[in-house]
Order: sequence, then structure tokens, then C-alpha cells
Amino acid sequence: MALLQNKLAVTLILLQIAFVVLFALVVRYDDDANAAREKNSRDHSKGGADPHNNSITRYYAMFQDVHVMIFIGFGFLMTFLKRYGFSSVSYNLLLSAVAIQWAVLVGGFVHSPGGSIKVGITTLLTADFAAAAVLISFGAVLGKTSALQLVIMTVIEVVAFQLNEFLGTNVFGAVDVGGSMFVHVFGAYFGLTVATILSRDGTEKAAGKEGSVYHSDLFSVVGTLFLWVFWPSFNAALAPGDDQHRAVINTYFSLAACVVTTVAMSVMLNKNSKLDMVHIQNATLAGGVAVGTAADMMIQPWGALVVGSLAGVLSVVGFNYVTPWLSSKLKVHDTCGVNNLHGMPGIMAAIVGMFAALMASESQYGYSLYQIFPARSPVVNSTALFAVQKHLSVDPGVGRTAVLQAGFQLTTLCCTLLVAVVSGIVTGKLMQLSLWDEPKDHQLFDDSDYWLLPDEGFPEGKMVN
Amino acid sequence: MALLQNKLAVTLILLQIAFVVLFALVVRYDDDANAAREKNSRDHSKGGADPHNNSITRYYAMFQDVHVMIFIGFGFLMTFLKRYGFSSVSYNLLLSAVAIQWAVLVGGFVHSPGGSIKVGITTLLTADFAAAAVLISFGAVLGKTSALQLVIMTVIEVVAFQLNEFLGTNVFGAVDVGGSMFVHVFGAYFGLTVATILSRDGTEKAAGKEGSVYHSDLFSVVGTLFLWVFWPSFNAALAPGDDQHRAVINTYFSLAACVVTTVAMSVMLNKNSKLDMVHIQNATLAGGVAVGTAADMMIQPWGALVVGSLAGVLSVVGFNYVTPWLSSKLKVHDTCGVNNLHGMPGIMAAIVGMFAALMASESQYGYSLYQIFPARSPVVNSTALFAVQKHLSVDPGVGRTAVLQAGFQLTTLCCTLLVAVVSGIVTGKLMQLSLWDEPKDHQLFDDSDYWLLPDEGFPEGKMVN
Amino acid sequence: MALLQNKLAVTLILLQIAFVVLFALVVRYDDDANAAREKNSRDHSKGGADPHNNSITRYYAMFQDVHVMIFIGFGFLMTFLKRYGFSSVSYNLLLSAVAIQWAVLVGGFVHSPGGSIKVGITTLLTADFAAAAVLISFGAVLGKTSALQLVIMTVIEVVAFQLNEFLGTNVFGAVDVGGSMFVHVFGAYFGLTVATILSRDGTEKAAGKEGSVYHSDLFSVVGTLFLWVFWPSFNAALAPGDDQHRAVINTYFSLAACVVTTVAMSVMLNKNSKLDMVHIQNATLAGGVAVGTAADMMIQPWGALVVGSLAGVLSVVGFNYVTPWLSSKLKVHDTCGVNNLHGMPGIMAAIVGMFAALMASESQYGYSLYQIFPARSPVVNSTALFAVQKHLSVDPGVGRTAVLQAGFQLTTLCCTLLVAVVSGIVTGKLMQLSLWDEPKDHQLFDDSDYWLLPDEGFPEGKMVN
Repeated sequence: MALLQNKLAVTLILLQIAFVVLFALVVRYDDDANAAREKNSRDHSKGGADPHNNSITRYYAMFQDVHVMIFIGFGFLMTFLKRYGFSSVSYNLLLSAVAIQWAVLVGGFVHSPGGSIKVGITTLLTADFAAAAVLISFGAVLGKTSALQLVIMTVIEVVAFQLNEFLGTNVFGAVDVGGSMFVHVFGAYFGLTVATILSRDGTEKAAGKEGSVYHSDLFSVVGTLFLWVFWPSFNAALAPGDDQHRAVINTYFSLAACVVTTVAMSVMLNKNSKLDMVHIQNATLAGGVAVGTAADMMIQPWGALVVGSLAGVLSVVGFNYVTPWLSSKLKVHDTCGVNNLHGMPGIMAAIVGMFAALMASESQYGYSLYQIFPARSPVVNSTALFAVQKHLSVDPGVGRTAVLQAGFQLTTLCCTLLVAVVSGIVTGKLMQLSLWDEPKDHQLFDDSDYWLLPDEGFPEGKMVN
Repeated sequence: MALLQNKLAVTLILLQIAFVVLFALVVRYDDDANAAREKNSRDHSKGGADPHNNSITRYYAMFQDVHVMIFIGFGFLMTFLKRYGFSSVSYNLLLSAVAIQWAVLVGGFVHSPGGSIKVGITTLLTADFAAAAVLISFGAVLGKTSALQLVIMTVIEVVAFQLNEFLGTNVFGAVDVGGSMFVHVFGAYFGLTVATILSRDGTEKAAGKEGSVYHSDLFSVVGTLFLWVFWPSFNAALAPGDDQHRAVINTYFSLAACVVTTVAMSVMLNKNSKLDMVHIQNATLAGGVAVGTAADMMIQPWGALVVGSLAGVLSVVGFNYVTPWLSSKLKVHDTCGVNNLHGMPGIMAAIVGMFAALMASESQYGYSLYQIFPARSPVVNSTALFAVQKHLSVDPGVGRTAVLQAGFQLTTLCCTLLVAVVSGIVTGKLMQLSLWDEPKDHQLFDDSDYWLLPDEGFPEGKMVN
Repeated sequence: MALLQNKLAVTLILLQIAFVVLFALVVRYDDDANAAREKNSRDHSKGGADPHNNSITRYYAMFQDVHVMIFIGFGFLMTFLKRYGFSSVSYNLLLSAVAIQWAVLVGGFVHSPGGSIKVGITTLLTADFAAAAVLISFGAVLGKTSALQLVIMTVIEVVAFQLNEFLGTNVFGAVDVGGSMFVHVFGAYFGLTVATILSRDGTEKAAGKEGSVYHSDLFSVVGTLFLWVFWPSFNAALAPGDDQHRAVINTYFSLAACVVTTVAMSVMLNKNSKLDMVHIQNATLAGGVAVGTAADMMIQPWGALVVGSLAGVLSVVGFNYVTPWLSSKLKVHDTCGVNNLHGMPGIMAAIVGMFAALMASESQYGYSLYQIFPARSPVVNSTALFAVQKHLSVDPGVGRTAVLQAGFQLTTLCCTLLVAVVSGIVTGKLMQLSLWDEPKDHQLFDDSDYWLLPDEGFPEGKMVN
């Protein structure tokens, strides 16, 4: 029967039915979106909720920026392949659509086990972040898997992502406002691990198809630029007040510096002093990743410039030396170079964050130190806590020192790497099952067998399959 | 004389002069944009208007999202044709530019006959909605009309659109926060009616030009994704507080579910299990349409998932079965498949809205029931009204029951279909006049006779005209 | 040594180091972004700053719109050249990244010499405006310079831009909310002057490469449409309350009218009544420029329509008659036609602004007259000033009359033209130094020698170099 033959369709339909059932069981509107909430039914002047304070007002603009990054930024960034553009942009959409529904459920289970899951605008935003991790991993295996394999990967990765983020935030008390560890490091090394497990000789034989054409490179830059422009929102969306303001400023400057050093390194490392479009498409964004963990900290604008400058250098060096080395020595084939855009700059972000945490003191942050680093807040019922709470409402913490906080930041990086690699191995092994229709060699980096294509075929060059 | 020969130029110039004259006579800034208003000239602390409460602050971000949808979303969505990209994106811009000016005037006349028309940010937003209806109709006739015919269509359609929306809202008391009936159903069936009137045999002969090439399909996806990402703003822009929040959540989930089922149906209905780019470009958006009417209602996230899931199925089925049937049996040629993206999902939205209205009660909505369904508000001077007004400022209504409200929702759908078809017939007949330079057969789906083209001609394939 | 051979890389690295050092010396977070500020460390209810009033909340959405315009709008607008798309979009990114860092420093030195420079969201916004001026100039010389020459140009132009803006605003007391004089006129005539200095015969011989192909024209329209859609934010971002609201309305209508007359003029001036994509890409935007200076003034919506209508006519006439004339008679080769999009419409904006200033009176503006035209505010300690300040907090001015204000508006236009031409001459002469690797004739409008290109080469047509 055709229906049973079509494993992808059946899987997606069952998955969607499962989402509907689980949502019906446990997912409800949060207070700010619930008409039945009594305060939403009253004028503000009569004790009702102030519509200006509805969280939709506060978060919506930055949420939409992030939404553009996920669906357009990542989606077009991956269209550089000359024969795989349809798959790139469409699987990006499909995986994100799966990830955001699943992330709401898994995130809810992890953070409020047992109870109902309340969704509001911040739920949508954090679901988008989970999708980002999946898309980064997708970049590592781009062109080398079936859609079905990717759906399997998405379902598992979202769970591992949520658990790791819970570990880092709630157990280790680490902070990572831009998700450089939780999203970028995790997504990159999970994806690279999967790519390693799935590696095979066919990849190299298909190398002729792995390239770009002139206009596919320009489509990719559409993705780059939307990521570049909205990255300040990615790093700042969840921060409040002046923290958010600082995260925007730091990200803006880090990205600007990163562009300058990326161009410099690109021509410097090419023996004919030619620019490489791959660097423009990817390395220019490393500044956004590298400043992510410390984005809301008092690193000052010059600090942001230093971080961005170094990130550009690191990323171009990665593309020119690390990627070929990984590919030839370790058989890690990284289609989009996620190690250079998300992996190494993410590790750098974690280290920058660790040092910034180490140097954070009340003299520099005032009482907001305890908002930015909640674990540093004094313990419950302590005089120190009351002294703070006289000025600023903060939750009790564990009274951590700066050194301890820095230590936990580093621990979280290590934990993230560990969880990414271990869950990546498990996922990769699962994805290898013949059940999931892994592409044959001639299907690598090629839409032909998966899409109805226009009669004219691919642009420029009727390469024989 | 060259000037008189050029009917398009003359028409546009006369039209623009008419707009200037009419604007000079009746259009003025509304209070929030009028420097002369006394409250705008005072500090807030001295009794002046609070700049944070200026409507520009409240509506601007979502307005801009909608603006992107109209000019970039719709514009690029239609660039899939390999030889008609210049016309698609440019006529989209031209028709919108005409529509928004004209919609301000017509909308003003309809809603405040006689008085001056006050424009503010919500006027711009609703003018954009009117343009959306025109662009949907444009999709049905894409490639088959002259620019002049399209301008005539725009001028008439905006009037019919405004009258129908007035009927539905002010006479029938229907609600349709995302405009699924007023914008999508109206635009689709108006356009399909016009396409039917204009249908002729030449269309089929030009079929070789109606296709896409690989990169024109990617340009089209740029449009798709901007529509997809910003659709929550389209459905939520005019709703207040928690209603807006809910509209965002419902649309976000409906669209995500729709992507999953679209991909599933696309591979399932193709005999080689191949994906069809047309579905990705269009059917993935049906979830935004189908949840539009009920977007601000208490359908719960799982309800939104159900709506979106079914919309994806409906839309793909439409593309694969309904469109060919309409074309072969009824001679309705629907270039962009607007019946599948806007028509049927719009009807579905109306029905979902009807059921949601049927089930709406004070226990579920609190007093905001009377904000969301104004006609259900108790009659003027009634005890029931005072009881509500003690908590929430609502206008008196007609004390409608849920059943009646549902009935009026259905009535409005029927009325919309009727007005769309009747005004579409009149418009189509008018557009057939030889006066408007209807394209000849060889000019269908082809920029060649209308544009200065680059020397290299169209990408891939120098098809003989 | 390779390093020394590569002047571009060395220059960029030195420049970036200089930025880091200068930022470290003088640039700090402003109050709204500074955790150490005591008010940011207190709850609003306990005398702390209200996070809703943090300037990030007020400016961020419009800032992001402008950011998209700079990096995506300008970037893609210039990709129309068939063999120069990589350079166009990448140099756009590089020059902007240099300009925004440098503009923060120069702007700070000019406006607060000696003290530290405080950066907040408005700093980022005005840095983006400075980048816009550079990108406009870039359009005039597009394809005819090396990256190194462009970096030199950027560094000098930002200084001249800031000085001219300081002169106009702080010395002449001119107002220009949308930067039509300070950004557009300055950028255009600076760039045209540089283009004139650099003009040579080779440009014409390379004419075969200067054209577009079908899809490069569509990439360019991506840029056009993002500029078009977000232009209201460009003109309104820095205005408060109802002024901002008015700037949005005026720009929206001016742009809509401009599209209509652009299309009309495009077909009217072509002997075969064909549309020209160059006009759609550029002239449709002239309405945004032409209304820029008066955008926040009480010109009424019909006034905005008149301005936009005329701007479209002016711009198309410019492309069809002025550009060829400038090229053949004055040897001014203007690759993107910046004279038609930014130059002449900018001068028109200045004149419209002058007349609007001439007609501005307290009866039309209330006390906000003194907010919009600060120099018209009564002198310090005058009874007139106290009378105003009883209602609205305004700074003392110099009690200028409307006629005087109009005169200073005109003076500022003249000053801008003068500074642009003089600094353009100096810059052009400097750029001619052989040191900066001016491209050879065969390198004009061609990425080949500067980029690693895909094997397939340029789309459509393997033109011999």
C-alpha cells in the first residue's frame, strides 16, 4: 500500500497526531493570553491587567526578529549548494516546525513536570531557540541524510537540548543569555558527532555536487544578512531593561568588528589574496556567537570589539585549516562548517563568559549582579539577602562567589560538550538504521530524487548524475 | 501623440492626481499624529498626551510586519514564473501603491461618510489589508492580464472589499480578526471569478511559459517565508492585550502544524513520493489563513494545531485535485492556486470561527466576551450592560446569543462569497473591454513585450516565443 | 612577506586595532545600558528606573528596521550587476562595519569633545545613518574601485559627514529628521565627486560587464523592497510621539505616490512603452528621500502625496536624461544612479523642508513648534520661553522667525553640497594614489580577480574577460 511505503508521510502524520493529543492533554494559554483570567477582563483603572504590561508587548518585536533568523536566516544560509536548495530551505522549515511543537512539550515536561504547560510569548521564543540548535546540527549533515533521518534527529535532539539546558541553568546555575553554550556549542557538536557516525566514502565522490553557483551563493547571503542584522535580538531577547540594552550594544559591536577581521583574514590566508564567499557567508556571524554568553555582562564596548575581532579570525582559520583537517584526518565532514561558525566561537563565548563572570562584582553591577547571576544572590533569610531586596526584588540564591560562578560556567561548557557528543552518538547510530532510507551515494547533495524539478533542471551545468 | 497612445501612463497619472485632490479635500492627520492637537503640545506630567500611549507605539511593530508581508511576501511569492518575475514583483508593488491610497479614501467614505477622514497608523494598517485582498486576486490572474487591466481591477475591488467588510462588521456584527473572510475568501473568489470571465484557450497554449526554473522557485520561497514568519502579526495586529497574545500563539502553532502535514501530504500524493515545491511555497501558509477568524478566540493551542494540520491537508489536496479539475472542467485557470491557499482555507477559517463563536461563553472569556464579540454585549441601558461596564468598558451591543452570533458568522461568509462573485463578474466584464489592452496569446506569462530585458534574456533556455 | 603584500588585510587589521584602542580609552555604556548606574539596580517601585522607559524599548523596533535597510536594503540593491554581486553585497557589509565603529568615535568627538563617549541605542542608530551616507557614495563608484580604496573613502567620508551634520544641526540650527540633506544629498554628491575624480576611459570599454541578468535584477529588487518597506522607520526613528507618527504617515504616502508616477513615467519615456527595471529598483524609493526633511512637519497627507508624485517623475527623468548627460558631457559615471535616487530627490527634500519651515507657525504646531524647530524657541530667560515651558519642556533657542528658519534650511543645503564636493575632491585625489590598488580596466565591474568563484562562473554567458 502506497501509504505504508511512504515512511516519511506516515511518520510526520503520526508525529503531528501525537502533538495534537499531547497539547490537548497538557498545554494551555498562560495568564497573559488567557481571556478567562479575571484580570484580563477588567479595565486597568479598575484593577485589571495593564495591556501595556502584557508580555506580548515586551517580547514581540525581538521574538519576530528571532523568528526571521530561524526560518529565513538559517533557511537561506544553507541554500548555497547548487543542487540542494529546495531541500535546504524546505527541510529547514519542516525541522523547525517539528522542533517548536516538540520543544514546547519537552520544555514544559522538564521545567514543570506533572503540571499543565502554560504557553505565552516567551514559550514561543524559547521553542525557537531549541529549533536553532537543531538547525545548526542540520548544517553539519546537510545533503547527507534523508528527510526522515532528519526528523528522527530533531525529535531526539530537542530532548537532549532541553535536558542539557536544564542541567546548565537549574543545576549548575550557569548563565548564557545568548545561548552560545546551550544552542551553538550544543547544536554544533551534536551535529558534528552525528556527521561523524554517518560518515562514509561516498561523500567525497559526490564532491562535484557539493559546490555552489554564483546565484546560489547570493541566496545564501540573504540568510547571512538576516542572521547578522537580527543577532542582537537573539542575544538580548530574554534579558530585562539595561541588561537587554547592553546585550544589543555588545552584539552590534562584536559583529561589526568580526566583519572587518573576517575580510582581512580571508584575503590574507588565500595565496592569491582573493576573498572567499564562504567566509562572508559564515565567519562574519561568529562575532554574534562569541559574545553570546557575556552579552549582558559589563564587558564594555571595547571588550565586545575584541571578542568580535578574535571570533572573525578564529572562524576563518577554522574554515581554512580546521575543516580540511577534520575531514581528512577524523572523517568529520561538516557541510556548512558549523564548527567554525557555531562550534569554536561557541566555546570561545563560554570562555569569555567565564572570565566576565570571574570579574563580576557588586561595584560594577550594583544589585543587578544578583539578577544576572542568580546563583550569586545571598541565601534565603540571610541579612545580605534582605539588604539587597530592600532595593531590588531578587530571588534567594546560594551566595556563590565570582570564582565559583566562573567554575560553574566552565562546568556547563564541559557538560554541554559531553551531552552533545553522547546524545549525538546515540542519535547517529539510530539514524544509521536502514529503516530511515539513508541516501545512496548518487543522492548526496542532490534534490533530483526527492523533488519534482523544473524542466530546465539545475542552474548552469547539466552535470550527469 | 505618444502621451495619448500610452494609456497606462495616462491612467496612472490621472489616478494619482485624483488621489491628491481627494486627499487635499478630506484627509487629515488623526489626533495622535496632529501637532495642532493641544494635548500633543503638553508634557504628559502637565496633562498632555502620554507619548508611550501614542498609537504609533502600540501598532508600529506589527504594522511593519504586515507591510513586509504585502510588499515582499506577496511580491516574491509570485516570482516563481520563469519569464514573468519582473511583472510579478513590480505589479505587486504598483497595485499595492494604488490600493493603499484608494483604500484610505474608500474606507473613510464608507465608515465616516461626509466628514473628514482622519489617518493614523491603524488607517495605514487597514489599507494594507485591503491591498492584500487585491494581491490575492492578482495571484489568480497572474500572467494573463495587462497592467492596465490590473489597475482597473484594483480600483473596483477596493470598493467592493470595503463595502463587504462594512456589511460583515457593521451590519452583521461578524468578527474576523485575521481577515480570513474579508481578505482571503473575498480576494480569492473575486480573483477566481475575474479569471473565469477572462478565461480563453490561449492560456493552455502558453503552458510552456507558465513553469518555474530552479532559482525562480527559490525567489518565490523568499516570499513564502516572510509571509509565514509574519503571519502572526497579520492575525493579531488589531487585537488588544491578551486577545492579541492569543492570536499570536494560535497562528504560530497553526502554521507549524500546517508545515508538517503539508510535507506529509505532498510526498504521499505524489506517485514517486517526491516533494512538490508548489506545496512548500503555498500550502505551508494555509494554516495562517485557516486560523484567522478564530485567532483571538479561546480555541486553545491544541485547537490551533488541529486547524493548521487540516489546512495543510486541504491545501495540498486542493493543488493536486481541485486546481486541475477547476481548470479542465470549469475553465477556471488559477495561476498561483489562490483557491488552495486563500479560498478553501478561508472558508475553513470562517467555519472554524463559526464553531468557536458558537461555543464562546462568559465562563470561558470573562467579560472580554463582549469585547471580542461586540454584538453579544448587552443592549444599551440594560442592567446586564451596567454589570459588565462595572468591570470593563464595552460598548452596548444587541445582546446576541452564541447561536445567533454563529449564524451571523456564517451569513457573513455567504455574503462575502456573493459580493466577491458578483463584483468579480462585473469587474471581469469591464476588464474584457479591448480598451485595456488585454495581452495577446504570445504575451501570456511573459515579460518580453512589457519590459526592457537584459541582453542575456531569461535564465536557462532561450525558448522561442 | 605575504602579510606586507596584502595591503587590504593589513589596513583592516590596523584599523580594527585602532578602533579597539580608541573604544577602550573613551567609549562607555550610556546610563540606560549601564548596570553600575544606581537607578538600574532598583525596582521601579523603589525609585529605580522604569524598564518600560529604557530607551531600548522606545527605539529598538525602528532601529532594527533601519539596520535591515543598511545591510540588506543597500546591500542587495547593488547586486544588479551580473558579475559584481559578490563584491556589491560584501563590500556593503564591510564598509558599513567600518563606518559604524568609526562613526561612534567621530560622532562622539564632535558632539562631546574631550569627555567620554556614551553609547546607547540612539548611538547605534545614528551610526547606521552615517553608514547610509557611505553606502550612497559607494553606489556612485560601484565596480570602479578596489576594496582598499573604498575603506579609505569610508574613513574620510565619515569625518566629513559628521562635521557637516554638526554644522547644519548645531551651528545653523537646521532640522532634517529623515536625513535627506545630511545623509542623501551629502552621500550622493560626495560619491559623485569621487566618481568624477576617478573617471577614466576604461569605464566605457567595460560597459558590457556593467549590465544585469534577469535574476541579478530580482536580487536587486529584494534590496529595493526592504528599503521601501522600512523607509518610514528611517524618517521617523528619531522623532518623538506625534511627530514620529506623522513622519511615518507622510513617508508611507509619499512612497506610495512615488511608485505610481514612477511606473507612469517609465512607460511614458520609453519609445516602445516598455518598463525599465532600473526605475522600479530605484525611482520608486525617491519618495522616501524627497519627504525626509519635512517628514515630521504638518504637510498633511495630500502634501506627502504631492512630494512623492513629483519625486517619482524627477527620478525617472533623471535616469533617462540626466545620467546619460552627466556621463557623456561631464564624465561623471554614476553606476547606481545615486543622483536620481539620492541626489536630486535630496535637494528636493531640502526645498520642501524649507517651504514647510517657512509656513510653520504656532497655530499649526502648538508649542511643539519649538520642539520640531529648536532654534525658533524663545531665548533664555524670556517671558515667551516661560510661557511655553509652562506647558512643554523645551530648551531655550534663539527666537528665530519662520523666514529665518527657512533661510537656515537653505543655507544648510548649500553648506552640505559644498562640504560634500570639497571633501569629495580631497578624498578622490587621495584614492587615486597608486598605493590603493585601483582596479585595471579589465577588473571593472568584475568579481573575477577578487573572489574565489564557483567553477560554473557567472550566470548566463561565459563572456571572455
